[in-house]
Amino acid sequence: MKEAKLISSIQNPLVKKILLLKEKSRERKKTGLFVVEGKREIELAQKGSFTLKTILFCPEILKDFALNPLIQNSKIEVIEISRPVYEKIAHRETTEGILAIVKSKEHGLEKILFKNDYPLVLVAEAPEKPGNIGALLRTADAAAVDAVFIANPKSDIYSPNIIRSSVGCVFTNQIGMGATEDIIDFLKEKEIKIYCAALTASKNYVECNFKGGIAIVVGTEASGLTDTWLQSSDQNLIIPMQGEIDSMNVSVSAAILIFEAKRQRGY
Amino acid sequence: MKEAKLISSIQNPLVKKILLLKEKSRERKKTGLFVVEGKREIELAQKGSFTLKTILFCPEILKDFALNPLIQNSKIEVIEISRPVYEKIAHRETTEGILAIVKSKEHGLEKILFKNDYPLVLVAEAPEKPGNIGALLRTADAAAVDAVFIANPKSDIYSPNIIRSSVGCVFTNQIGMGATEDIIDFLKEKEIKIYCAALTASKNYVECNFKGGIAIVVGTEASGLTDTWLQSSDQNLIIPMQGEIDSMNVSVSAAILIFEAKRQRGY
Repeated sequence: MKEAKLISSIQNPLVKKILLLKEKSRERKKTGLFVVEGKREIELAQKGSFTLKTILFCPEILKDFALNPLIQNSKIEVIEISRPVYEKIAHRETTEGILAIVKSKEHGLEKILFKNDYPLVLVAEAPEKPGNIGALLRTADAAAVDAVFIANPKSDIYSPNIIRSSVGCVFTNQIGMGATEDIIDFLKEKEIKIYCAALTASKNYVECNFKGGIAIVVGTEASGLTDTWLQSSDQNLIIPMQGEIDSMNVSVSAAILIFEAKRQRGY
Repeated sequence: MKEAKLISSIQNPLVKKILLLKEKSRERKKTGLFVVEGKREIELAQKGSFTLKTILFCPEILKDFALNPLIQNSKIEVIEISRPVYEKIAHRETTEGILAIVKSKEHGLEKILFKNDYPLVLVAEAPEKPGNIGALLRTADAAAVDAVFIANPKSDIYSPNIIRSSVGCVFTNQIGMGATEDIIDFLKEKEIKIYCAALTASKNYVECNFKGGIAIVVGTEASGLTDTWLQSSDQNLIIPMQGEIDSMNVSVSAAILIFEAKRQRGY
């Protein structure tokens, strides 16, 4: 292992920079960088072809972990940090002793590539809660959907809360972001049918055919999908509900629809 | 409407009592009372046969809402509160101007009654995160499962976070709580089959028959189910996952299993 630089003062400018990257979406956009905490998350970022710029580790805390596989690329800066520095920059529940500064990817639609002739994709319009976005990305990973689109995004997917709640699935999915209109045009061009989760003019989802190229589109819990999606819908889907409350968590509804598609497609 | 008492000082002892009930599980247990915020949640509590003891409302904030249907029972105490008192006791995101002090129910297994010959029930062992418990209860409500059991409970279901994240579904479900062993005995006595979500010795859930009396049992994301459940399992279920991460959110997994059961049972 190459020799690591050492930071032991919480006054170090890099400490301030990391805190800014964690807290401010603006700073992440300006610099094209974000912060990842935890061994598994950093490994997933690297596996997902993200470029690690800097690794910071606290040897007092980081045990039984080989840094070498992560830093084969000699351009990665490796910095040893003291426990007070680690505690200053790490999330309080993170106890693994390692963080990385990572370069953001572009998520323009032109970057999306499909390996399958009949892709299954998930579209979430304007999702807001980090917990929901994280759960959607975990489900999309588990189902190995071909892409996840975030339409009219309201959140920066590189926020620490989303990375954490996705347990790193923000790195394992092919993610496209853009305006609703542009995503609709993209899907139509690729001959992917648009199936909107909606309460009106809807068919029970288990009676729908998910075998072709399909986009499952979900809106927010509060207001559902915008008319733009509904007007472009090939089929509206409904999950029949029989309780007192006519609403499920958006990540739960999406998962039920995605796994019905998986069932029909034979996994 | 009967004349309401008025509280306009945040020093009033009832204000302190409400804050204690919101913050301390111990206080809720000692008194058998808890606090519900929001119109819909209070209506659901009443509809679910919970006894409302006190209603507190801030007339400046509470608009377009008829209190009368809630307070037909003349034993309900109605208290008008000033805006500062409301802001002191309400959750910061709650803006509806109404709270209630409600009596807890007992959740012993002897209280559970089934209307169906072949009940579909959900069992969650030791769930911890309020967000997950809330999402499980919402899904259980939407699927109109016959009961939800919380085995070896770690949380008080009347905590404000669980009530809020369940959007009141803590009141719409029949909930049984008890030790894992007791719930297993109860299910066996009722001839309900135990289907454990587990990674070992498991069958693809879509190949399983959910048509009889079935309990879908899920553990925690971190450690799964205890051996006690696995040893009593009639069938282990697995949701095939094909991503980088072999784990979905527990409320998402439970929903996929419950709605496959609903599909097989024809809703």
